[in-house]
Amino acid sequence: MERRSFVKGAGMAGILATGVAPAVHAQQAVRWRLTSSFPKSLDTLYGGAELFAKNVNAAAGGKLNVTVHQPGELVPAFGVVDAVQQGTVEAATTAAYYFFGKDDTFALDCAVPFGMNSRQMTAWYTWGNGRKLFREFYRQYDIVNFAFGNTGAQMGGWFRKEIKSAADLKGLKFRMGGFVGKVLEPLGVVPQNIPPGEVYQGLEKGTLDAVEFVNPYDDLKLGFYKVAKNYYYPGFWEGGPQITLYVNVKAWEALSPELQAIVESAAFASHVSVQAHYDTVNPIALKELIANGVKLHRFDKSILDAAYKSALQLYSDLSNKNPNWKKIWTDYEQFRNQSIAWFRFNEAGFNSYMESLKL
Amino acid sequence: MERRSFVKGAGMAGILATGVAPAVHAQQAVRWRLTSSFPKSLDTLYGGAELFAKNVNAAAGGKLNVTVHQPGELVPAFGVVDAVQQGTVEAATTAAYYFFGKDDTFALDCAVPFGMNSRQMTAWYTWGNGRKLFREFYRQYDIVNFAFGNTGAQMGGWFRKEIKSAADLKGLKFRMGGFVGKVLEPLGVVPQNIPPGEVYQGLEKGTLDAVEFVNPYDDLKLGFYKVAKNYYYPGFWEGGPQITLYVNVKAWEALSPELQAIVESAAFASHVSVQAHYDTVNPIALKELIANGVKLHRFDKSILDAAYKSALQLYSDLSNKNPNWKKIWTDYEQFRNQSIAWFRFNEAGFNSYMESLKL
Repeated sequence: MERRSFVKGAGMAGILATGVAPAVHAQQAVRWRLTSSFPKSLDTLYGGAELFAKNVNAAAGGKLNVTVHQPGELVPAFGVVDAVQQGTVEAATTAAYYFFGKDDTFALDCAVPFGMNSRQMTAWYTWGNGRKLFREFYRQYDIVNFAFGNTGAQMGGWFRKEIKSAADLKGLKFRMGGFVGKVLEPLGVVPQNIPPGEVYQGLEKGTLDAVEFVNPYDDLKLGFYKVAKNYYYPGFWEGGPQITLYVNVKAWEALSPELQAIVESAAFASHVSVQAHYDTVNPIALKELIANGVKLHRFDKSILDAAYKSALQLYSDLSNKNPNWKKIWTDYEQFRNQSIAWFRFNEAGFNSYMESLKL
Repeated sequence: MERRSFVKGAGMAGILATGVAPAVHAQQAVRWRLTSSFPKSLDTLYGGAELFAKNVNAAAGGKLNVTVHQPGELVPAFGVVDAVQQGTVEAATTAAYYFFGKDDTFALDCAVPFGMNSRQMTAWYTWGNGRKLFREFYRQYDIVNFAFGNTGAQMGGWFRKEIKSAADLKGLKFRMGGFVGKVLEPLGVVPQNIPPGEVYQGLEKGTLDAVEFVNPYDDLKLGFYKVAKNYYYPGFWEGGPQITLYVNVKAWEALSPELQAIVESAAFASHVSVQAHYDTVNPIALKELIANGVKLHRFDKSILDAAYKSALQLYSDLSNKNPNWKKIWTDYEQFRNQSIAWFRFNEAGFNSYMESLKL
């Protein structure tokens, strides 16, 4: 069981050169550098990686040592796929939809407009075909994927002015995550790509009309509420964005079965923890935002209807031109539809009554 | 790090008697018997324990070996608290509310009427005070607790006749889980305690008017739909029943830090898997039930309102007479209310739109 990690730790050449008995080297720790697309200030997301490192290191008893790194330390935030593929780092955590530019299929490993909620996504990944299909997909990038958290449904973002119907989207300068732009652009939205450091000022000056980020907890820190009071929901383009752990396939295969099992379980622990963390801190942050004069608005149904129609068109186009997309989307869509046909009765029946109590 | 498992494996007397060097014994596996309150036929729930054993055994590399046992093999289904407390077995998995007869507080570790949904429960347990408060509570039973799955909101059960309002509950002979009886009895329901093997016949002959069990997947197997066509939702007394893993405190403390970390992460993997399994198979089973002529009904609001009022009275009574209940309920209630005030906007806003599409 130690042979592989030995080979990895010392290198075959090293053994031959030194003639040291393998049994001695077998105790050497395998080292993994895990780079995060999220800075430490996003402590929910960065915290999932830190917890993973803590759990793996504790369980492995010195045989595997994981260190966590912020964007820029080793690899830029959006360089993580390349870095894991090239073996620059052994592991990374990210939101897969950042990489829709490489292949739109990446988005299905995180969130697409009108996709699954977090429970449905986890079910699809764990007991449906999700993880399996993405294991196949990521093989071309030398990546082994694991579910690694979920933010839950995200908010629709901060708007300087009220958006009363789909017509108000025309010409809206909106800074948003990338993939959703493909759905909102046909409705007249003008997606903006502005460096994070300039977003607040843009919103303040009106060179930006709107921005979406994550959820109350993260949004509160960024202070957008000071310059745009209208906070919209739901973020229909991110109903249950999953965070993913990427492991370089050679680093994975070099692990003993024991260490593989440790990594696998530790990823699940982070998967639970990230969402639980968000679910614990978001309610408190929402309260604080409201106390600061933020106005909560529900997107008008005409907006969701128009965006849904646009999304259907996009998914149909992608299915026609991208076999990767078609294969995974077909399974994803079928699982989503089947899930909702059950959730809409019982789970929704329970939740909607509890919500009606206004506790 | 091996000292403790050594001591456990061989016993201190054994070392002294044989004089065998500890280093040899240090390789001996610690053995855990994990008894389940659920039979193998409930493969979602039993499967959580099997997965745990598989993950722990793989990760521990022979140092800890977990075997899983059905009710009756070592311990009766409802004897698991006593068995873990007395050290008859090292571990057990169960639904804590079975033990409300020992202390009503047990129910809060699983589900109470109008309690939290599964995501809220997981958040409370992981990032709120839930797990911590129950660690304190279970100390008196020499138990260390872990979240170990969730069924999601359960159905309200099978009824021979339609139940149109709270008035129809009067005199209803209803076989149901124990704790909810305290809420429904004041409304005129006559809780029935009938051995599982006699439920189907009772429902067929009319000595029972109704029965609640779990969810479409498990309910389909039991065939109640053949003798009672009315299937009600939501099971407002079980909005997110959590499954728990119990570990005997001495068995836990005897583990090395490595093995403790392995157990901890593996419990999370099962926590995810059990719910994901239910969420994957329930939609398929619901479809089959409907194809078999089952009629889905939503409980009338008057029934939920009456039950909610009764629940509030019960929780107030329990808080007055049971300090364990009061301490945990106070925290639970505060967390639930805060969560719902957030979930009702964004998460519900997203889900309700998706459900309105009737995909």
